[in-house]
This record gives sequence, C-alpha cells and structure tokens, in this order.
Amino acid sequence: MKFLTGCTLDYWIPGLSTFVFNVTANETTHQRVLSERLRLEPEAAPEEFVSESGNRYHRFSLSGGYLRLRYDAEVESVPSLETPESVGACAPNDVPLATLPYLLPSRYCQSDQLMRLAYREFDRYPRGYEQVNAICNWIYANVDYLAGTTTPLTSAFDTATARAGVCRDFAHLGIAFCRAINIPARFVSGYAYTLQPPDFHAVFEAWLGDRWYVFDPTRRIVPENLVRIGVGRDAADVSFALIFGPAQMTGMTVYAEAAEPISGPAHTSRSSAAVCSA
Amino acid sequence: MKFLTGCTLDYWIPGLSTFVFNVTANETTHQRVLSERLRLEPEAAPEEFVSESGNRYHRFSLSGGYLRLRYDAEVESVPSLETPESVGACAPNDVPLATLPYLLPSRYCQSDQLMRLAYREFDRYPRGYEQVNAICNWIYANVDYLAGTTTPLTSAFDTATARAGVCRDFAHLGIAFCRAINIPARFVSGYAYTLQPPDFHAVFEAWLGDRWYVFDPTRRIVPENLVRIGVGRDAADVSFALIFGPAQMTGMTVYAEAAEPISGPAHTSRSSAAVCSA
Amino acid sequence: MKFLTGCTLDYWIPGLSTFVFNVTANETTHQRVLSERLRLEPEAAPEEFVSESGNRYHRFSLSGGYLRLRYDAEVESVPSLETPESVGACAPNDVPLATLPYLLPSRYCQSDQLMRLAYREFDRYPRGYEQVNAICNWIYANVDYLAGTTTPLTSAFDTATARAGVCRDFAHLGIAFCRAINIPARFVSGYAYTLQPPDFHAVFEAWLGDRWYVFDPTRRIVPENLVRIGVGRDAADVSFALIFGPAQMTGMTVYAEAAEPISGPAHTSRSSAAVCSA
Amino acid sequence: MKFLTGCTLDYWIPGLSTFVFNVTANETTHQRVLSERLRLEPEAAPEEFVSESGNRYHRFSLSGGYLRLRYDAEVESVPSLETPESVGACAPNDVPLATLPYLLPSRYCQSDQLMRLAYREFDRYPRGYEQVNAICNWIYANVDYLAGTTTPLTSAFDTATARAGVCRDFAHLGIAFCRAINIPARFVSGYAYTLQPPDFHAVFEAWLGDRWYVFDPTRRIVPENLVRIGVGRDAADVSFALIFGPAQMTGMTVYAEAAEPISGPAHTSRSSAAVCSA
Repeated sequence: MKFLTGCTLDYWIPGLSTFVFNVTANETTHQRVLSERLRLEPEAAPEEFVSESGNRYHRFSLSGGYLRLRYDAEVESVPSLETPESVGACAPNDVPLATLPYLLPSRYCQSDQLMRLAYREFDRYPRGYEQVNAICNWIYANVDYLAGTTTPLTSAFDTATARAGVCRDFAHLGIAFCRAINIPARFVSGYAYTLQPPDFHAVFEAWLGDRWYVFDPTRRIVPENLVRIGVGRDAADVSFALIFGPAQMTGMTVYAEAAEPISGPAHTSRSSAAVCSA
Repeated sequence: MKFLTGCTLDYWIPGLSTFVFNVTANETTHQRVLSERLRLEPEAAPEEFVSESGNRYHRFSLSGGYLRLRYDAEVESVPSLETPESVGACAPNDVPLATLPYLLPSRYCQSDQLMRLAYREFDRYPRGYEQVNAICNWIYANVDYLAGTTTPLTSAFDTATARAGVCRDFAHLGIAFCRAINIPARFVSGYAYTLQPPDFHAVFEAWLGDRWYVFDPTRRIVPENLVRIGVGRDAADVSFALIFGPAQMTGMTVYAEAAEPISGPAHTSRSSAAVCSA
Repeated sequence: MKFLTGCTLDYWIPGLSTFVFNVTANETTHQRVLSERLRLEPEAAPEEFVSESGNRYHRFSLSGGYLRLRYDAEVESVPSLETPESVGACAPNDVPLATLPYLLPSRYCQSDQLMRLAYREFDRYPRGYEQVNAICNWIYANVDYLAGTTTPLTSAFDTATARAGVCRDFAHLGIAFCRAINIPARFVSGYAYTLQPPDFHAVFEAWLGDRWYVFDPTRRIVPENLVRIGVGRDAADVSFALIFGPAQMTGMTVYAEAAEPISGPAHTSRSSAAVCSA
Repeated sequence: MKFLTGCTLDYWIPGLSTFVFNVTANETTHQRVLSERLRLEPEAAPEEFVSESGNRYHRFSLSGGYLRLRYDAEVESVPSLETPESVGACAPNDVPLATLPYLLPSRYCQSDQLMRLAYREFDRYPRGYEQVNAICNWIYANVDYLAGTTTPLTSAFDTATARAGVCRDFAHLGIAFCRAINIPARFVSGYAYTLQPPDFHAVFEAWLGDRWYVFDPTRRIVPENLVRIGVGRDAADVSFALIFGPAQMTGMTVYAEAAEPISGPAHTSRSSAAVCSA
C-alpha cells in the first residue's frame, strides 16, 4: 500500500529554543519512503541523526520568531501478514540480546509494578500471539478511550487503575503488561490512515517468535494502515517534538491518505492477521 | 459468644515519648465488655478519650526506660445475623448525614482514583449486600494475602495494581471500592478469634439499608468472631499505638479465645449470614 | 468587620443526582451570621446537617433539569488578633484528644510521607507560631501559584515535588508539613474579601497553645478577611458541592465585599498578627 | 591504579530460570581489564553480549539446583583528572545526538516531574561542573543515607520527597535533577575500592563539555576508586543479575582491593578533581 502522509507544526518562539523533531517516516524491511520533503520556515538546516533502531531525528535551534515545520511523504508499506496461530513465543533465553532493553521497565511502562496483575490476568493464555492479543482485548474492554483524561505524565501504572486514556496510554499499558510476563515490547509512533480525527498515532510491538508484531489495543486502526515514524522504550523516546527552551506550539495538522485505491476489507475492519512491519 | 482476649505490647523508650493506645474493646449495641484490665509497667495513669464513634484512646507520656502494656478483657458479642437477601442498599440521599465522611476518600482509601475501575467491576451487581459481597470476592480472587509485601504507607491505590497485601490492605481496598460506588464504608480493627497466627485484625463495614455490616475480604475469620476495638476512615484512625517520640516496639503478643464452648459451624466455616455488630 | 458575601452555582442535571452543598458561613466564637438566604431554583427543601465541627451541609436530590443555588449572607467577623511571639506550641501530650484526627495523615495531606523533609526543613525553628510561619514562608518561596497546574486529585505529596498549585494545594502542603512535625492542622474553606479573582478560598489552621490559628501560605489574603464556611481534615471534607449522580456545573460566581468601611492597613497588607477566628 | 576486584553470587534455583549477569568490568578509554575469570558452578557456557555502550552481559539458563557465579579481575584504571573550573556546559544543541536518550526521563529518574524543583534549586549556579556539583551537595545535605529505607521500586520522585535511600537512590536523584535542567546524565554501576561495607556501588555521570564526568552524591568513595561495570539510563539497565524465573539469591560477597600501593591522599579524601573514566 502507498500512503501520502505528513504534518504541519507551528510554534511561537519567545527565546532561544532547540528542537529535536521525530516526524519523518523511517525505512524498514517493510516500509519504504518513496519521496519526502521536510520544510522549515524560516529556512534552517537541521542536523539529522539516525538512531540504532532507525528513528530519524532532526535538530536545530532558533532564537525567536515563528516556526513552521512541514513534512510531506509518499511511503510504501508492505507489511508481512501472517496467520496468528503460526506466531509462537520467544523465551527470555532466546530473545536477541539487543532486544533486552525492551524487557525492562521504562518511564511510562512500569512493568515491575504490574507483575502480579499481569500474571493473574494473562498467564493462563497460550504464550505467543494469542497471549498478546488477550492483553489487547483486556485493555480494550477495561480502559475507556477518552481524550483529555490524561497528561504527558500519565503512565501505565496510572492507567491500570484509572482506566481511561488515549492511544499513548493504551500502548504504554500494553507494553508494560507484555514486559511483566517476559515478552519484549516497544512503543511505535506513526501516521495512521483512517484514524479519525487525524492525529499522530501510537501503537506497540511485541517480540514473538523471531520478529516484532504490531498491536493496536485502541482498535482505532488496523496495523496495516500505520506509516511508521519511530520506535522506542516508550513515548519519551519518540516525541514528535522534543523542545529545549520556551517555544510553544500554536498549531498542528496531520494527514494520512491512500496514494492508490485500496481493495479488500482490511482498511476498514479489524485485522485478523498478525502484522509485521518492522 | 463470650471471648477472652487481649494483648501485651513492649517498648523501649530512649527519650520523651507520648503514646496514644487504641487497644481496648469498645461498647456497641452488639458488644459488651464484661470485665477488662489495662496495666502499664511502669505504672501510669493514662488519660482516656472516647471518640464520637465510640473508640477508646489512652494517652500518656514517658521520658525513658521500658514500657509494657498489658490488656485483658472478657467481651460478650451478640451480633445480629441477617439474611443477605434482605439487606438492601442505601442511596446517597438517604445515608445519615453523620455517615457522610465514610463516603469520602481518605489517606489509604483513594476512592476518587478508583471510580472507573469500581464502576466497571461492580456496577452490574444488584445494589445492597450482594454488591459488597462481589467486592470482597473480587479482592479475594485478585489479591494475594502475603505478609511482608506492604508497608504502613501502602494504600488501596497501590494494592489495586500491586495485587498483594495483608488484612489492612484488603480492608482498605474494600473500603475504597465501596466509596467509589457511593456506599459508605469504614475500617474496623479488632481481636479475632481463630485467626492464625494471632494478631490484631482489620476488616471493614459497609452501610447498607440502615446499619453497618461487617465484611472480611481476607476470609481469614468469620465476622462473628471479631471483638471490636475501633472504627475509622482507615487504618490511620485506629492505630493500636500512635507514638510521638523515639519509642521503639520490642515485642507484641495478641490472643483471642472462646470463653465458653461455641456450638455450630459458624466459627470455622465462612459465614453465610449478613453480620451487624456495630 | 462585616462582610456581604455569597455565591451563585448553576448545574445541568441529566439524571437523578444528590447534592450536598457546603457553602453557608458557619458560626464560631469569632464569626456571626447576621442574616442569610439560601435559594434554590427550582425550589427544594434541603435537609440541613451541622457536623461536630460546625460545618453546615445541605442535601437534596433532583431528577433532572437545571439547578441554580444562590447564597447571600451578611457575616460579622471579630477575629482575635494576638502577638505572634506570645503564641507557643502544644505538645502531643497536651493536644485535646478531640483534636487528634488533625495529627493524622489524610487523603490529600500525606504527612506520613513527608516526615523527613519536614523535620529537615522546620525542626530548627522555635516551636509555636514561628515554626508554622516558617512552613508558610517555605511554601510561598518554593511553590508557584499557578492556576491549571493541578487537579482535584493532586495531593501534598505531589506538590512537595511538583512545586506548583493553587490555594487548595498550598493549604494541603501546609497541613501535611504541620502534622509531620506533630502540630495539629486542618483545612478551612471560605469566602475571601479582597481575593482576586473572586473565588472560594482555602487556607489552613494550626493548633498552637490552646487554640486554632489561621495561616494563608499563598499570601493572597490576610486571614482577617476570611468568612469561614467549613473545616475538615482536607479538601475532601469541605467540598462546596459533593455530587452523587451525573449533574454538571455550568456556572459559578462568588463574591465577598465589605459591608462597612474598613479602616487601617490590615485589609491590604500582610498581617503581622496571629489570627484566631475558629 | 590497578585494582583486584570481583564477586561471588549464590542462587537456589527451584525451576527453569534464565540469568543475565552484568558483573564484568568493561573496557573504556580509561579502564583496561588486565585479566579476568568468570566461573560458574555448575559449569555453563554463557552467551556474551556487548551493548552499544560497552556493557558486557552474560546469559544462560538452568533448570534447577544451586548456582555459584564467581568473578575475579585485575583492572587498571587511568581516569582523566581535570580542573573543575575548566569543565564547561554543553547546550542541548551541541549534545551528541547519540547522547539524547540520557536527556529523557526514565523508569527511576522522572526528570519530567522534577523540573520546577530542579530549576528552583539549581538554575542559579553557573552551568557546567559547578552546577552538577551543586546537585550533589544538595542531595548529600538533604537525603539520609540509610540502608533498608527503600526497595528496587523506589524512584527519584520518591526520594525527592522521602529524603532517604542508598547509593542507587542517590544516583537516580542526581540523574533526574541533571536531566531536568537539560544536562545528559546516566547511571554507572561498579566495584568500589574503599567502600565500606563492600558491595556493588552506583554513581552517575553527567555530560559536560565534550565528555562524561563521574559524580558520587553519597560521598562514600572518590570517583577515581570506581571499577566500572556498566552504564545505563538508570538501574534497570545494569542490574548485576536480571533473572527470568523462580531463582532466589542465597548469598553475595563483593570485594575491591588495590593491586599496588596507592600514593597520595586521593583514595581517602574527597576528590577535588573532575574525573572522567568513561
């Protein structure tokens, strides 16, 4: 599938501010950036940094005035769709050691505080895709999707009890539950085709068998419709804009469209396939 | 039923310390203190204070040395046993206004943070005894009774997620859930016949219909076997010993025996009656 | 001093809701309600309850529609003004036992978690008025008064670290610090002459010598200018409106005016007297 | 300086457990492992993984019985000692982008919740070594070093208020404060010559100028005396033993000795140099 996607971000900068943006689609085995354009007004030449996990960060500083960032891209996504039944587990002894950090608790995913809860709720499921799917079902059934109920400081520990949040909170809770039962899990940010209202989206990936599979516990999109931006331990690693200084956001628009007709039911109904796009 | 009960508490006092003990059985419609003796070594003449809710507090100060408090009592308990089906709810409009504080969040019972969780889990049950019983069943099924997993700072918010604790934590969670769905609930401390190992015990009461009913979500005793010491918003109100100063506890024994043969199965099996002893 | 004060509160009621209002000025040794009028539209006959500490609560239920509560009162306040130097401490052994609950941690005043911090910062001051004044100075110096930074769930533990809040948060932190160093303290809600913008206000009282003294760590009013509504362990006890049901507030105005010319500098500058109005 | 250092770790393994140890000294520009031996009883061939930041992890699984790990090494450390006055700051625009993660909040270092506190306390100091030194002085002055007051779940947010902890907690708080004022900071685990009682130690590093400098806010060792094991965002990344399964530790000894006479006062007194050993 080919998508046209991007965003416009506006800021007012009362004094020296350093920006680190993470809004550009990344390249993976299953995702290719066919063309893209990152424009800054006023013009600036951001420094690009590609992290070990492939995220692309753009950094620059401005001492005042207005800033508009505009990003437009055409991205082709060819995720691998597999039969859920065929996706097994991966024991801690077999997890690639580079994946180890995704088994550890992180700022917004306190798996160390959720071990008993996760064990009680999810240990009874067969390990593998079905177990992570049970986690997503639990979150969908027990947490209300409600804009405005949480803040950037809200974490999985809060959501496990408060039971309300947005996509970021749903992803954090899914990650924390996975790690609590020894499944590596990570945060994925992206542009999401069919998401209403349009916005940056957050889902998570779990390491099963020998690769990452995408899960969206909000059920607001099918994983095939995600244009990937970045991955990280949690939202802290992939803020679309990390700002050092007094800059304030004054506007934001996000879009994701199909670049060609999409056939089949996948784009509107819940996916029945295990999706790997990493 | 008549019980012989009491405790011995030992302290080392390196410097001026004020003690407020709450270890004496109180008098209620359903509980009578037949005889009792409170001894202090060295001798002291504690000031007694009976709170609005009937708790008896004993206060005195010592500037050093060792302290032994010994309390022995014979207490008759004649709880009212009712049919659970006959115990209905009490709407917020009908709750006696003096009971209002027991609808509010307190230090260890943050009902304001547990409203969605409580609503999701318990709103579907018929209001009244059955709903509170469902709360107790949930706690029993989802929280591990494990000494050493919690501290005096542990609260219902923690336990809702950490899923382990002792009688005090179970009571706090029961109280918080009740208040979250608008049922007045309070903490009850006491001596507990058949509790193993012997210790001070904590249960909770919910206001249903027109009176308080006792619940023990740990299922470690039947409510009929409790000799009541005090009631409060949570454990903070009924510490067996509140100490201002550097005194350190060096020993504690607690006992509760039947003063006469107890017939029937009530003392060993789970009660099927709704118990009011307040 | 005589004040004209009151409020108008508007609600939309989509379904059966029970209200418990605590907006009426109370009577104390130092405060007299000369005249007052509590009106409800539609008309209702609220049940009045006067708590042990003198708060007046008004309860009633409505099954739908709009509600307007309007309260107007003329209140005379004759606080006792004393020399701070003359106000000494009160040891835990001498605190009236009925005041004991105000030494305990409560929902929003977790004094049990702030003991080391309070001891480190405030133990060095002479016990009595000066020590509580040092607490207020610390809060004023270290916490930003910023509307919108906190929620009804914010507690003293949060504010001790987050360092921003509103009057309610300032009062909670003052109370928690006092209790942590064994000074009874309680929350006071009221109408505040000269407060800008007009709103309900919150301050706290500490038990020193043999009575309660008022402190406002926000320094936004002088304590003499407070028309007292209620006292409690913390904000939970004196919500101006406790609502059981789906009612939503749609508007609120609060006012507090001088009923007669006020002479002297007291109403504009920071008070130098120890003020008792309980 | 040359050190002889190592540890013995004993476990009882009731069922299949996977271990990931991080106890081996790492190699840096300033630290060289002259010789080392890692022995396991029963014998096992652990898989070694060297992380991007140079930590060496050893993984293997056992299905039951006892395990003893013994590690002994001779390590040469030649830290760079610089004049504190010469160590300046590094603005967010100049921080190497690979260092970016160390500016973000992590599980035990919630810099996002400590920004106002950090700004109030530390913004007034000159940026650079002196500012981080001020952070260490604050921690040393305001937090009690007390074994047994914290648990593996304790975080910088807790310690900022609770004001007690051990080396791990001191390091977490130092890291959180640094990040809150935009200084990259990371956790460093190690063996510590002269530490009493002998144990694994934790300190932190801050990125100043163009490199990492070591700080120990506990003041229990001089940074020159640390044999480095690993670095990470916080303690989660460098647990000496990460265990998946039911294994229980039954014993631990740690040692660190000088392999040759050490001259000068550096090993006993507080260092006056800025130390870089990364």
